[in-house]
Amino acid sequence: MCEATAYLMKEKSEELLMEAVDTVIPEDGGIRLVSIFGDQKFIKGYIYSLSLVNHKVFIKLHG
Amino acid sequence: MCEATAYLMKEKSEELLMEAVDTVIPEDGGIRLVSIFGDQKFIKGYIYSLSLVNHKVFIKLHG
Repeated sequence: MCEATAYLMKEKSEELLMEAVDTVIPEDGGIRLVSIFGDQKFIKGYIYSLSLVNHKVFIKLHG
Repeated sequence: MCEATAYLMKEKSEELLMEAVDTVIPEDGGIRLVSIFGDQKFIKGYIYSLSLVNHKVFIKLHG
């Protein structure tokens, strides 16, 4: 399986947002992360970068 | 390996941009896609959505 871990990028660190992320879809004012288990999380941010071989998705908050 | 295929989303279709994408990193005015083979492609766009279990990354052009 090729799900990834999503991290929220902060000024000096990264915070674990969600594990086993399958889809990330745009939604009003942000993005919705959905895991392979069906867990969902809405974030007022955007997909900043990807490192897929490392199974990592980096998210940044707007503004 | 968990690389993905990147598609450019157009109004009514999707165009194959790059296969075996490993990293996608922001760069002035767009994003740079790098494949597991080291191929690179700069796109004046952003990461629109992800479907990781399906190994798909969707890119949209700015504006």
